[in-house]
Amino acid sequence: MQNEKIPVAVLGATGSVGQKFIELLSNHPWFEISELAASERSAGKKYKDATNWIMQTPLDNKYGNMIVNECKPNLSSKLVFSAMDAEFAGAIEEDFAKAGYIVVSNAKNHRFDKDVPLVIPEVNHEHLELIKKQKFGKGAIITNPNCSTIGLTLALKPLQDKFGLESVNVVTLQAISGGGYPGISSMDIIDNVIPFIGGEEPKMESEPLKILGTVEGNEIKNTSINISAQCNRVGVIDGHLECVQVKLKTKAGREEIIKAFEEFKSLPQELNLPYAPKKPIYYFEEDRFPQPKIQRNLEKGMAVSVGRLRECNLFDYKFVVLSHNTVRGAAGGTILIAELLKEKGFLEGIV
Amino acid sequence: MQNEKIPVAVLGATGSVGQKFIELLSNHPWFEISELAASERSAGKKYKDATNWIMQTPLDNKYGNMIVNECKPNLSSKLVFSAMDAEFAGAIEEDFAKAGYIVVSNAKNHRFDKDVPLVIPEVNHEHLELIKKQKFGKGAIITNPNCSTIGLTLALKPLQDKFGLESVNVVTLQAISGGGYPGISSMDIIDNVIPFIGGEEPKMESEPLKILGTVEGNEIKNTSINISAQCNRVGVIDGHLECVQVKLKTKAGREEIIKAFEEFKSLPQELNLPYAPKKPIYYFEEDRFPQPKIQRNLEKGMAVSVGRLRECNLFDYKFVVLSHNTVRGAAGGTILIAELLKEKGFLEGIV
Amino acid sequence: MQNEKIPVAVLGATGSVGQKFIELLSNHPWFEISELAASERSAGKKYKDATNWIMQTPLDNKYGNMIVNECKPNLSSKLVFSAMDAEFAGAIEEDFAKAGYIVVSNAKNHRFDKDVPLVIPEVNHEHLELIKKQKFGKGAIITNPNCSTIGLTLALKPLQDKFGLESVNVVTLQAISGGGYPGISSMDIIDNVIPFIGGEEPKMESEPLKILGTVEGNEIKNTSINISAQCNRVGVIDGHLECVQVKLKTKAGREEIIKAFEEFKSLPQELNLPYAPKKPIYYFEEDRFPQPKIQRNLEKGMAVSVGRLRECNLFDYKFVVLSHNTVRGAAGGTILIAELLKEKGFLEGIV
Amino acid sequence: MQNEKIPVAVLGATGSVGQKFIELLSNHPWFEISELAASERSAGKKYKDATNWIMQTPLDNKYGNMIVNECKPNLSSKLVFSAMDAEFAGAIEEDFAKAGYIVVSNAKNHRFDKDVPLVIPEVNHEHLELIKKQKFGKGAIITNPNCSTIGLTLALKPLQDKFGLESVNVVTLQAISGGGYPGISSMDIIDNVIPFIGGEEPKMESEPLKILGTVEGNEIKNTSINISAQCNRVGVIDGHLECVQVKLKTKAGREEIIKAFEEFKSLPQELNLPYAPKKPIYYFEEDRFPQPKIQRNLEKGMAVSVGRLRECNLFDYKFVVLSHNTVRGAAGGTILIAELLKEKGFLEGIV
Repeated sequence: MQNEKIPVAVLGATGSVGQKFIELLSNHPWFEISELAASERSAGKKYKDATNWIMQTPLDNKYGNMIVNECKPNLSSKLVFSAMDAEFAGAIEEDFAKAGYIVVSNAKNHRFDKDVPLVIPEVNHEHLELIKKQKFGKGAIITNPNCSTIGLTLALKPLQDKFGLESVNVVTLQAISGGGYPGISSMDIIDNVIPFIGGEEPKMESEPLKILGTVEGNEIKNTSINISAQCNRVGVIDGHLECVQVKLKTKAGREEIIKAFEEFKSLPQELNLPYAPKKPIYYFEEDRFPQPKIQRNLEKGMAVSVGRLRECNLFDYKFVVLSHNTVRGAAGGTILIAELLKEKGFLEGIV
Repeated sequence: MQNEKIPVAVLGATGSVGQKFIELLSNHPWFEISELAASERSAGKKYKDATNWIMQTPLDNKYGNMIVNECKPNLSSKLVFSAMDAEFAGAIEEDFAKAGYIVVSNAKNHRFDKDVPLVIPEVNHEHLELIKKQKFGKGAIITNPNCSTIGLTLALKPLQDKFGLESVNVVTLQAISGGGYPGISSMDIIDNVIPFIGGEEPKMESEPLKILGTVEGNEIKNTSINISAQCNRVGVIDGHLECVQVKLKTKAGREEIIKAFEEFKSLPQELNLPYAPKKPIYYFEEDRFPQPKIQRNLEKGMAVSVGRLRECNLFDYKFVVLSHNTVRGAAGGTILIAELLKEKGFLEGIV
Repeated sequence: MQNEKIPVAVLGATGSVGQKFIELLSNHPWFEISELAASERSAGKKYKDATNWIMQTPLDNKYGNMIVNECKPNLSSKLVFSAMDAEFAGAIEEDFAKAGYIVVSNAKNHRFDKDVPLVIPEVNHEHLELIKKQKFGKGAIITNPNCSTIGLTLALKPLQDKFGLESVNVVTLQAISGGGYPGISSMDIIDNVIPFIGGEEPKMESEPLKILGTVEGNEIKNTSINISAQCNRVGVIDGHLECVQVKLKTKAGREEIIKAFEEFKSLPQELNLPYAPKKPIYYFEEDRFPQPKIQRNLEKGMAVSVGRLRECNLFDYKFVVLSHNTVRGAAGGTILIAELLKEKGFLEGIV
Repeated sequence: MQNEKIPVAVLGATGSVGQKFIELLSNHPWFEISELAASERSAGKKYKDATNWIMQTPLDNKYGNMIVNECKPNLSSKLVFSAMDAEFAGAIEEDFAKAGYIVVSNAKNHRFDKDVPLVIPEVNHEHLELIKKQKFGKGAIITNPNCSTIGLTLALKPLQDKFGLESVNVVTLQAISGGGYPGISSMDIIDNVIPFIGGEEPKMESEPLKILGTVEGNEIKNTSINISAQCNRVGVIDGHLECVQVKLKTKAGREEIIKAFEEFKSLPQELNLPYAPKKPIYYFEEDRFPQPKIQRNLEKGMAVSVGRLRECNLFDYKFVVLSHNTVRGAAGGTILIAELLKEKGFLEGIV
């Protein structure tokens, strides 16, 4: 029937990303959570007893009373969202894919597998083609990039398309929610900044190369931009701010660049996907913007905010990018991938 | 008599930098505050009634009961520390210098006057010679750089000396105390970051060029490093963190650079000046350091902390610098200049 | 015509409460902002140029492009919301009332005027009758209580009704947004608590007495509860938390009290007013709730959250109350009063 | 020899209280840390490798290079400070006492043992006599109260002595460092307050009764004040603020009470113990004081600050108390007990 929702499962449902999936999937027009799965420790309990719910909207009893499953490929929902810890996600996601499930994952494990697309729907929706060639039969794994990569790469995409990118320098001020829950100790971050996030810089220096790359045969050919990243943790709850510098391949005026940001649209906008922002990138002329507290919730957290574009004597331009790390950068971005999968027909015959 | 202390005055004594001068000058072995001066509004009142004391050490009644003077050159102390607002500092500091006072200033107004030295004692103490050629007769103006410049330039100095600097890129995470008092509204910074500090980036891009320059005749010839700065305000009370990238003129290994940081010493250390840190720069090998809360008070806030030195594919190296913005970057740095003036004989016949 | 909205004006539109009125009145089903008014300094400017918009939803250009009026009774909207500073509100509100305007005010000036009702719609809607006897002809003044009073008094109301209140002790942990904008300096509240809020304790000790009082003839007869309040400012953005202790007139069991909280409903719920929460009070059994960050937005910020009810050896019971200070405690509460005025017919013949 | 320092050990040295002991005992005039002990997991490692040092003063290599011992009574230091988790402290402390060690403990386990004194040196130093009757032979256990109890009880002592206390009501705003490390998640406390601290309220309602009690024969007879406590966690790093209300047995004027606070002195002051504050209690007349950030470090964190004394219609008076929870409330208070033990001769023949 046309109006029936597609049942989905959330793997790793008790963690903070898992909770965000549940929060965002409530009232989703196409998907309906029918199963929640987590570690053995949680399995068999009611979800509300297995999790320490920290979202700002109350836990709906519809989910709270679900009995938590183990993360094993015996679920009835064939579309599964993975919010599992990297420690476990690698093997379990493969098990699901082999068993014919479509796994859309926020975990890092398979991001660089040759046949696994690493997707930001507005940037490289065409990479989804890769899954046709995956070794899993009907099943598949599709990955969502790292939270700090997503904001950066969305802002880079129109520049890459219009002017070409030679090099990119980025210094981040990242929110604590990126560290999960309980994550960063309050003793470490109140009145403080931590100039290091384990594993984050290599991700930011490599993931955009694949995302901005091109499908060649059965795999992605990376683009060849030079990227350097320095990552800092700051005492902000949600919203990663990134100070970016770019060297372009062709000259561009300030107004042209702002126009490129503001006019950027892609397939999710054309398809009018439920989680797609009307406008993926907003440019702000006020010097003091973007700010996490003010702009992170733009378009329900799915739009990226850019500001302070100015010339740079070491590169060509410098500017500031802000994106909501747990929405656009995690659960929301992953849901958008699933919407795209559906709309492009990848779920047909499976879910 | 040998043991008598030099009487000093603080101009702009009621503001947050003025308060920090008073806090740091209590028990100074050479200087003794004998006069406090501030705006007309405060003049004539007891200091404790004219100021909203926000330092973490209680206000000594010795100062609290002083009657505040106007900022006019009729003070008996011939050595004056200026913590005045830039709105007034320019003209008043000149008035004092013309009247024969030695003005050591934290205000920005005269930093780029050709005959006014802009001094970090460990970096360019030799620039003090300039004041002999100032137009003020016995009086003189010496300036302390901007708080975010000082940490950066101290860390750059040994690199400039040993390897030469071609370009420097810096992105800052600056503390709220840099905005004075009341300064940043709590509504603007809790759970937030502000990607803009008015006037800060031009200062960071220009001041190091003069400080690292050389005396040629009656003025300073700027050095010719390319610098780009992006400045952010974060919800940290004290301590500016800076993510720095450098391109060197000659190749250098990581160990050589750490050695250059760790072994850096200069005239203030040789002269064993009271406010000079034993070691101006500390290098930390732990990935998570330096952090404002943990390292800002090193050597009473006068040392700079460096960490995370690693190669950078866009420059040669990247690293992180931390310094205490109201001590090393303001009152403490200015006091150190005055100590140097005394020890080098510039105060003779005046104070 | 049935579907035409009532035009309203906001006085004091540029401040933080004024902004909140605009944010909350966008898309209101009954009211439409047709005029904005503020101080002489702002009058004549476009609203977006006259204010420093700090709300988390972007300023709609519909309002941003309005030309700000002076706060003079020559506006065409006859229903006006006052968010003016207490310094000016007193006289200006009277001028408007005398000129036939209905003034619903968040300012403190007229709260204790004998013929002016001080209203929390769920608690004392019947006090609105007072305005019939006001000295202003067709015009009227109705006041909204202090933000910290509202949460407290809403939670007290069912206890007063069912068991009677003898004494109430309250210690508050109040959010910084209660101090307006720029309000509290970040230097004063990060890593800190301020155990004093000017004028707050007297308000909390007196306002509930009038609100819980009864109409007798032309005025309100205060109720006679003994109240003590201690008020603290904490580094929370929105949401006042209050630790309350009560001595009841008649004995009550814990379950009875929770039932009284949970079942409490009043006229705004019966009338199904647009801004009325479905349930005014929610009781949470989890020890760690209510928390500002988690529960402040319950029912769009209009519901009050209660938790930790337990016996108290000095009173009868102690518990914790949380309410959103700028929504339920200011703009939202004031809008609910206006809705009640309309629905009870007080606006007929005027707007 | 007269000048030789007494060797001491710290049990539970790797936790945050253990670290604070090490920080405070560096350069202690009487005691010298000669051994560090912790869990099996840490034993055998260098201290610097076994702990995540979070103090704001760098870890001295003298301690960093010590090999961590297990918490077994085979240490050579006969005076041991216990900073162990309550999970283990109970049995291990007994083992040490039985083996002839003097254990001064910050853990809660033995606080209510009949023959174990619970001591704030300025309040009940005479309770130390109890240890002569302990069942441990030469060994003994002495306990330091809970951090929030100590500030409160120090402030109550002069009132109890001069006017008698009938009832005490307290609502706390407690710092995150009270929760240990990593303790409270930053996700839980930034822009938030938690109205619950597990086990804290019962401690505050019971410990003062023993501390303010009297030695009768072989045990303490509790005093009979009625106490109610409500405990909240706020985003402050160090410093517990407490809103207190008291009902006195005899009438007292405001000035008398302030005098009682200000003039309060006790044995530690008379003996001039190294860690004793010159003045245990400071009264501040400014409405906005005491504040954690401003007053917590008074007298190196060992003094208690009181302010806002005013009449209360439900009790007699209300006021605010502030104390440094990890110094006066934990490591510093415990060290002061050990100093008292030494000076009163309890260590003779043992250490």
